[in-house]
Amino acid sequence: MKTINHTTNPLREIVLTGDRPTGPLHLGHYVGSLLNRVALQETHQQFVMIADLQALTDYYDKPDTVHHAVRQILVDYLAVGIDPCMTTIFIQSGIPEIAELTVLYLNLVTINRLRRNPTVKTEMQQKGAEEHVSAGFLTYPVNQAADITCVKATLVPVGEDQLPMIEQMNEIVRDFNRIYHTTVLREAKPLIARTSRLPGIDGKAKMSKSLNNAIYLSDDADTVAAKVKAMYTDPNHLRVSDPGQVAGNTVFTYLDAFDPDHKEVAELKEHYQRGGLGDMMLKKRLTDVLNTILTPIRERRALFMKDLEAIMAIAHEGTQRTREVAQSTMYEVREAMKLLY
Amino acid sequence: MKTINHTTNPLREIVLTGDRPTGPLHLGHYVGSLLNRVALQETHQQFVMIADLQALTDYYDKPDTVHHAVRQILVDYLAVGIDPCMTTIFIQSGIPEIAELTVLYLNLVTINRLRRNPTVKTEMQQKGAEEHVSAGFLTYPVNQAADITCVKATLVPVGEDQLPMIEQMNEIVRDFNRIYHTTVLREAKPLIARTSRLPGIDGKAKMSKSLNNAIYLSDDADTVAAKVKAMYTDPNHLRVSDPGQVAGNTVFTYLDAFDPDHKEVAELKEHYQRGGLGDMMLKKRLTDVLNTILTPIRERRALFMKDLEAIMAIAHEGTQRTREVAQSTMYEVREAMKLLY
Repeated sequence: MKTINHTTNPLREIVLTGDRPTGPLHLGHYVGSLLNRVALQETHQQFVMIADLQALTDYYDKPDTVHHAVRQILVDYLAVGIDPCMTTIFIQSGIPEIAELTVLYLNLVTINRLRRNPTVKTEMQQKGAEEHVSAGFLTYPVNQAADITCVKATLVPVGEDQLPMIEQMNEIVRDFNRIYHTTVLREAKPLIARTSRLPGIDGKAKMSKSLNNAIYLSDDADTVAAKVKAMYTDPNHLRVSDPGQVAGNTVFTYLDAFDPDHKEVAELKEHYQRGGLGDMMLKKRLTDVLNTILTPIRERRALFMKDLEAIMAIAHEGTQRTREVAQSTMYEVREAMKLLY
Repeated sequence: MKTINHTTNPLREIVLTGDRPTGPLHLGHYVGSLLNRVALQETHQQFVMIADLQALTDYYDKPDTVHHAVRQILVDYLAVGIDPCMTTIFIQSGIPEIAELTVLYLNLVTINRLRRNPTVKTEMQQKGAEEHVSAGFLTYPVNQAADITCVKATLVPVGEDQLPMIEQMNEIVRDFNRIYHTTVLREAKPLIARTSRLPGIDGKAKMSKSLNNAIYLSDDADTVAAKVKAMYTDPNHLRVSDPGQVAGNTVFTYLDAFDPDHKEVAELKEHYQRGGLGDMMLKKRLTDVLNTILTPIRERRALFMKDLEAIMAIAHEGTQRTREVAQSTMYEVREAMKLLY
């Protein structure tokens, strides 16, 4: 780890990202966001939030899962190279100002506006009957606006599907600043991930714990090999000599995402389509590629897991540092809203 | 003021009440709740909350009104005899734990449950189109549950119309304790006010600033006289000699509420119904009765207004004391929810 602390460089743009701690992180997170964070910390003032309160909107009855996942995710962060000297890692529930801002922002948003949020709408439909949706779930975009504004982040890495969240947040910022005649809150721009979403090993949708189709950063080498072996390819590619399909073939999707030798991958694709290239050989290659990436991560993970107390101290320090920023924002908010007596 | 501090006597039941600071307090508050608080502080551990955050659910765009009203209400409290040595007076926004609990409780309540709350339903209909209702308004019963539980109050003085709020709060308490295998939160019982609601001087509905039909604790003697003079009586009682109606006659409603001589009031009612008793004479009596009550309050008010800084120090001290209780509750809540890392 470097010793220079970049986290308070005022010349750098402020970025906020994070994850809901509902389970350990997987390869989808790795290509979708973690690598990006490792790069961003070099050039930006980056906050990474372990969103335990947001996890509770879905996992309110599984506090043990959330508690355990917070530690797992923290270890994952450090293992992939998110450097606490360059990035401020914090735990959401350690920042009471986020709850305070949430409660204040709730007055600036109508129920109907929240219900119209496309992301919330989609997720609601997945959950089934709307009448069972909790107030915490419906209002979580407001909670996100509080996360982002409390550290005055102006750049938020998101997937395309999260764009309505940024829009909602900016609406709140504009309304707040207009109503209270202030400029304390800052609007944020989305930073859309270039990589498309990594499918699960079954080739379906995205990786998720509930679908049991994810390769975790914490999986050992044998587990990775077994998962790659079970990976979905071309169901019509029965014999090695048969021509095979590349499109929709999960092994190739993963090679595209992880194999550093793009030229060889292109040649393999051609060979596969021609016939004469077996799935086993491809899967062996992918296993090697993945384990080359995962072995050092796995080794650092094992090291960190041995001293979870020291690791948690990093989160506590980051939370403390974030709290100071959030307290300063909250003071300005109180000033603007005449809540200082 | 007494010097013994009863506020931390563990043998006393804990009561929480409060007001939304949207304007100065009036005679309706006086008979409906203030007198009750002056009595309760002798026998209970009483918290009185100036609910500025709840005021903002309706007054989000009038921060100056709320800010000013906080001071007015504090002065009103002290002037009527709420004693800061016996009652802990605090400002809601000074307790971040209330926001934190609100955010946690939002996960335990469905949107539909909130919408079914009769009090919210009625108020929503008064506000007009439901689509314009803010998330802050719909969720304010959850905020109230946070107010009550953060100090572990078990007794909440309310009007009949507020009973659904207590019910909602107790539901949250039971769900929380069950889900997190704890007994940290306490259910509360309502303490229903015996006095019926005081009508406005127009005889209509309740006193309210927007209807301009209230007599304030801060009104001077002439203003009280003028307001009583304008008071609604029996519109068919045209001449002194005419028989008059007592039912629905606001002057008699007020005499019933404020005149200490119930026997004389009974005689006056009889005389009025018989005919031969003029409105002017009755109104003169009521003015005297009200000014007898209001003069000492008015004098104390004037005294306190001269040193608002010292008065605000009382609120700061009460807020600090409440904060210590709320922090201890919040610690137990975090422990139960596994939010201590």
